Amino acid sequence: MRVSEIGEFGLIELLCRELAIPYPPASNVATRPGFVVDVGDDALVAEPSDEALIWTTDTLVEGVHFLPGRTPWRNVGWKAIAVNVSDVAAMGGSPRLALVTLCLPDQFCVEDAVDLYRGMKECCDAYGVVVGGGDIVRSPVFTVTVAMSGGASRGAAGEVCTLTRGAARAGDVVAVTGTLGDSAAGVRLLASGAHSEGAAARSLVKAQERPAARIEAGRMTLRAGIRCGMDISDGLVQDAGHIARASGIQIRIEAEKVPLSPALRSAFPDDCLELALTGGEDYQLLLCGPRAVFERLIVAGLDVTIVGEAVEGDASVVVAGGADGKAYGTEGWDHFRSLSKGGAL
Amino acid sequence: MRVSEIGEFGLIELLCRELAIPYPPASNVATRPGFVVDVGDDALVAEPSDEALIWTTDTLVEGVHFLPGRTPWRNVGWKAIAVNVSDVAAMGGSPRLALVTLCLPDQFCVEDAVDLYRGMKECCDAYGVVVGGGDIVRSPVFTVTVAMSGGASRGAAGEVCTLTRGAARAGDVVAVTGTLGDSAAGVRLLASGAHSEGAAARSLVKAQERPAARIEAGRMTLRAGIRCGMDISDGLVQDAGHIARASGIQIRIEAEKVPLSPALRSAFPDDCLELALTGGEDYQLLLCGPRAVFERLIVAGLDVTIVGEAVEGDASVVVAGGADGKAYGTEGWDHFRSLSKGGAL
Repeated sequence: MRVSEIGEFGLIELLCRELAIPYPPASNVATRPGFVVDVGDDALVAEPSDEALIWTTDTLVEGVHFLPGRTPWRNVGWKAIAVNVSDVAAMGGSPRLALVTLCLPDQFCVEDAVDLYRGMKECCDAYGVVVGGGDIVRSPVFTVTVAMSGGASRGAAGEVCTLTRGAARAGDVVAVTGTLGDSAAGVRLLASGAHSEGAAARSLVKAQERPAARIEAGRMTLRAGIRCGMDISDGLVQDAGHIARASGIQIRIEAEKVPLSPALRSAFPDDCLELALTGGEDYQLLLCGPRAVFERLIVAGLDVTIVGEAVEGDASVVVAGGADGKAYGTEGWDHFRSLSKGGAL
Repeated sequence: MRVSEIGEFGLIELLCRELAIPYPPASNVATRPGFVVDVGDDALVAEPSDEALIWTTDTLVEGVHFLPGRTPWRNVGWKAIAVNVSDVAAMGGSPRLALVTLCLPDQFCVEDAVDLYRGMKECCDAYGVVVGGGDIVRSPVFTVTVAMSGGASRGAAGEVCTLTRGAARAGDVVAVTGTLGDSAAGVRLLASGAHSEGAAARSLVKAQERPAARIEAGRMTLRAGIRCGMDISDGLVQDAGHIARASGIQIRIEAEKVPLSPALRSAFPDDCLELALTGGEDYQLLLCGPRAVFERLIVAGLDVTIVGEAVEGDASVVVAGGADGKAYGTEGWDHFRSLSKGGAL
């Protein structure tokens, strides 16, 4: 069935059912906990809260961020939520609410829209996010935009605490969570059609299509005393450049310390380091702070790896070593220029 | 110049300059008042507030909501903000923050993007909204999505107060602010190319391209004790249907009482009532409550007109009278079905 057949309000009703949102609103239907006014009015009204509001938005465009027919709609839905959750994780906060804007061609399949929302629901449930409505409009091109709010963490004295890009200091070490490069490897496998050949390939494609957001890692790091962090969406080297410029320090990365998954090493033995340094869409955290704090976090079980250090110097990134002998610049993903690079199709 | 020539980060820097946002972030640049973390990090962090959070989002798609080459980009920018401010007005709240997502073709003109942001800035300044960043991505089709937060009003006892669709009661009168139909008339004039022929035509086109949001009217109404309201975006009759269903009452509209501007009457003497009843994109408020309260509001100077009443009955809208003798259903604007109707191109 096409969305033109059931119309805007029929589609909204169907998608609200997927999300367990009472719709259309009626005076005898209870508002969900946490809301003064729920979906179906001119705007959502949340109960007052004493949290500092974290706010972010991210968009997936068909043909730019994913190719229909290759990525299941359910995974597009997951990722649309996950990339926003990752931004909240990168502030050390907790995600709360999502507003979803769908731009749909009028011949879009209702079943695909339902699959998309199932994937969004799975991701929302995984991270404790509630969908608070949004907007559905007609468009020649499918895009899904999520605006997400979260609550910032607080320190021992009740002060608002966040991970920011400008808080690195010379003498800090530089660390990353998880492993890098899997997502970019997944893009290559999808492009070559080799995306289902074996467990390694499937895990790389999963890193691309259903990335995990590091909410717990962000909060744990912040509690331990780290104050500088961001998520790696444009590639390690480019994102390290953002921290270098915002903090006014130089970042030196030791290439051989960058954590690589066995799947990445086996699938791309020659390019694994390049994928990890410049690939993008890892959604792991890039963190800077005292070495002793990271050593304690590692003992406490956090999957964090020290990959370099912040030093006095021009605001730049230097990659030292690397068995492949290549030079890496701070150029990563640019939506309008480096269109052939890294973590996008 | 094309956006592909200056790249994503060059464009962000240029647009931040238009909005007077410090960018890129640096440790020696002050964060704007109200923010813990400003634009340029993974997410925005606002200072804690005891307001109940109002949250809404609305999108304009090129070719669906406006035609490029016909509507100046500056007016597209104004409207992208104004339609969201209107949703906050419809809750009786105060708009605060906007996140802007631009989907841009890579051959989009940088100068047009700057004009768009000038229009957004004008509207933000008019309503006290601060732009808190957003996202810019490449897309085959231009769309601008704004997510807006606002603060809900509070009553005398400190309780959260809002205008909702479900709060109409049998015995209430139904009222609208301003005049209706001007915006839909503006669409017709734009489509026929007669949009600059005289002051009346220009005022109708202005209603379409630079609508005002009724923030003061929403707050004033709420303070006076009205609790049922919404903004008229899909046309009076269809929007009255939303209130009828959410409140479980019937709404009877007396056609000859619907307020029409002199400009509308002179430009469309035969169709003015139809445009006012079904046109859409008026962004005036549709309100229900006790007659005595509206009479006091009129005396106090609010441009509000009683146009009908809420009665016991099936959840529907009945339009009585009307010199044109036409019947009006509750069908207004549906993004996927009634594509030829009313307030859209």
